[in-house]
Amino acid sequence: MNFYDRLMDGYQNELTHSGVNGERLAKRLAELAKIGWTEEGGCERISFSQEELKAKELVMKWMEEEGLDVMMDGAGNVFGRLKGQEDVPAVLSGSHVDSVPHGGHFDGPLGVLSALEVVSAWREEGYQPKRPFEVVIFSDEEGARFNGGLTGSQAFIGQIEADEERKRVDYEGRSYEEVLKEVGLTPESVASAKRDLDDVYAFIEVHIEQGKRLEKANLPTGVVTGIAGPTWLKVIFKGVAGHAGNTPMNDRQDALVAASDFIRQVKDFPPQVSDSGVATVGKLEVKPNGVNVIPGEVELTVDIRDIKNEWKEEIVRLVKTCAQTVAGKQEIAVELEELMSVDPVEIPQHMQQKASEAVKEVLGSEAYHLPSGAGHDAMIVGRYVPAAMLFIQSKDGISHNPKEWSSLNDCVQTVHVLKRFVEKVCDE
Amino acid sequence: MNFYDRLMDGYQNELTHSGVNGERLAKRLAELAKIGWTEEGGCERISFSQEELKAKELVMKWMEEEGLDVMMDGAGNVFGRLKGQEDVPAVLSGSHVDSVPHGGHFDGPLGVLSALEVVSAWREEGYQPKRPFEVVIFSDEEGARFNGGLTGSQAFIGQIEADEERKRVDYEGRSYEEVLKEVGLTPESVASAKRDLDDVYAFIEVHIEQGKRLEKANLPTGVVTGIAGPTWLKVIFKGVAGHAGNTPMNDRQDALVAASDFIRQVKDFPPQVSDSGVATVGKLEVKPNGVNVIPGEVELTVDIRDIKNEWKEEIVRLVKTCAQTVAGKQEIAVELEELMSVDPVEIPQHMQQKASEAVKEVLGSEAYHLPSGAGHDAMIVGRYVPAAMLFIQSKDGISHNPKEWSSLNDCVQTVHVLKRFVEKVCDE
Repeated sequence: MNFYDRLMDGYQNELTHSGVNGERLAKRLAELAKIGWTEEGGCERISFSQEELKAKELVMKWMEEEGLDVMMDGAGNVFGRLKGQEDVPAVLSGSHVDSVPHGGHFDGPLGVLSALEVVSAWREEGYQPKRPFEVVIFSDEEGARFNGGLTGSQAFIGQIEADEERKRVDYEGRSYEEVLKEVGLTPESVASAKRDLDDVYAFIEVHIEQGKRLEKANLPTGVVTGIAGPTWLKVIFKGVAGHAGNTPMNDRQDALVAASDFIRQVKDFPPQVSDSGVATVGKLEVKPNGVNVIPGEVELTVDIRDIKNEWKEEIVRLVKTCAQTVAGKQEIAVELEELMSVDPVEIPQHMQQKASEAVKEVLGSEAYHLPSGAGHDAMIVGRYVPAAMLFIQSKDGISHNPKEWSSLNDCVQTVHVLKRFVEKVCDE
Repeated sequence: MNFYDRLMDGYQNELTHSGVNGERLAKRLAELAKIGWTEEGGCERISFSQEELKAKELVMKWMEEEGLDVMMDGAGNVFGRLKGQEDVPAVLSGSHVDSVPHGGHFDGPLGVLSALEVVSAWREEGYQPKRPFEVVIFSDEEGARFNGGLTGSQAFIGQIEADEERKRVDYEGRSYEEVLKEVGLTPESVASAKRDLDDVYAFIEVHIEQGKRLEKANLPTGVVTGIAGPTWLKVIFKGVAGHAGNTPMNDRQDALVAASDFIRQVKDFPPQVSDSGVATVGKLEVKPNGVNVIPGEVELTVDIRDIKNEWKEEIVRLVKTCAQTVAGKQEIAVELEELMSVDPVEIPQHMQQKASEAVKEVLGSEAYHLPSGAGHDAMIVGRYVPAAMLFIQSKDGISHNPKEWSSLNDCVQTVHVLKRFVEKVCDE
């Protein structure tokens, strides 16, 4: 079955109403999916590639068909603007169209096409919002090419410096300048793409959940409470390697035993602090890693996230103290290093409030609130502009994978919520 | 300082008595050390190499100088035989002269040269034992070439099959037959090297401890109670991989958390069963091993050893049960596989008894008993013939390393113990 037929399979036609059209959304998703379609049925639209550019151009064509004023800035960000009844700061909504290697067709495009579907619906309804509304495509959200990401939204808020970026080299060893040139950009054009943020009233991003909470709750849409910035801690336990046969149990400084004692405790800290916090030991290396050698050293990373900085810092503190305590008990040395720390972004209460009202009006049920554990363009923009996010249910929570899937029913219901939400923000 | 001078540095000359001569032992150790001497000051005498052969030939020359009847069997094992007063089964003592890559100068040679020193001492004293005595060099104990080892002693007891061995390929991709040919052997000659074990009364091996027990007890010599055969268990915990940010703590099946809970418990089982048991998780791999990915799978090995089979089996049972229990609690699948299981060899009480008497007579103190966690030729021979081992103190417990060291004082004291021990066994 082709992608469009898969989307339409089981679609409940009664969801097509109030101008929102499931068939149109499916057609656009399927048309976009053809650009960078892979043999395994997934998507490969690496940032700053011809595929990303083609995807933008296709959406720009649709924007023009919908009567929007279309503009691409120096970072390759695309804006399709619908005039408001008044000339006041605009409400923006969108996401990105680039993907990771071996990615799927929903992460990014769904946010862009949901915003576009709102415009299409308004056109059918003959509705013009009070505020201007812009459908946005941010460049290079995934960062697959230069191992960075969120480039377009950072340029939008004015956080890109040409001299810094110029040092970047892509996975094929090509320079930043060379890569950008192929899609008509330059380091300087990217760095100068800053938007006058006084002209932006709010930013709303629809995105797949990339988790299983909505699936377990059997809900199409969730209201995001905050975007958790990660702290990455490197922890090295240093014990003494030795012969597994000739070293008595009571005379060991086994780095892996210490690391294990640490790891099993790490999982208990987030729930002590908040409902939204998480802490994960995902990467671990044992040295020398021989069957009959007592581990002399274990190096691991802890990924700690929460939606409020004070909560995250408290989890980090508990994790660090635990590493020290465990090592101290077993006469093992420990080294701690903070590899990265990104501040979380809280979604303003008034934005969450309007989103929740929209959910209740459209779906007839109380809004389901959940944190975003992953970073998004809304995390960047949200530091300067009131931002909000709606999540769409992800099948099995899978993302960054050809198996990524959200049912069209869930997508269309979320578009209805987005439409109502945007109307509330545009008309206030 | 050269190797001989290092050995003699601090040697207590009063230990040279009763025919045992520290200077001679040091000279022979230093002479042997030149064969395969490495830039880093260690030893590289890989099995079935020209270096191993040269080392055997040098010892054979010394054997002849001491008046022994020298013979090399089809496996390259060397026997230097001293006639006894009676034509009865012989007492054998020795070890090996091959090394691991980047090895040291004591692991193996010290056992061979200690036995030879006993013969030299007897010659000076004009002593002839009642039983014949043979100084032995077993081939390929370390197994560095074919990833096997204990070849000579296995051939000696008749456990080598030519057709099986013929399949072996060395680390340079060369066949077993080709490698053997260069040192004058054939697969058939090795397989037919079985000794008539009715002619062997006992086997005694002197070896460095490769652990720190004697160093901590500040003793030159220890009496081995048993040789622990290892069981290697492979344990695979299978959970569910997921995004470290978007998966709540209470909805995870984290394979590494399960593995950690398991590992920290493993260390507690051996002491519940015996003083000699050990259990080590030395090797561990996390999949997919990404900083921001919940571990979906962890594969690890447990190395379990004890000197009595029933003790070892009990530790194995506790470890297996623990893996099942931990996995069950966390809804994680577990797979268990026994990769290897070698039965331990107990040292007969009457042999330990004589060794302990020798320690008391020579050193004036009660014997220090300890298990051997590593395998040795005595483990192979000891299944068919009463065997015993004496351990010599190892500096910092280091072995299989150029830093391997035992002080000449400790070596010579152990030769005195060996001499007294062999006399007791030869004369009974």
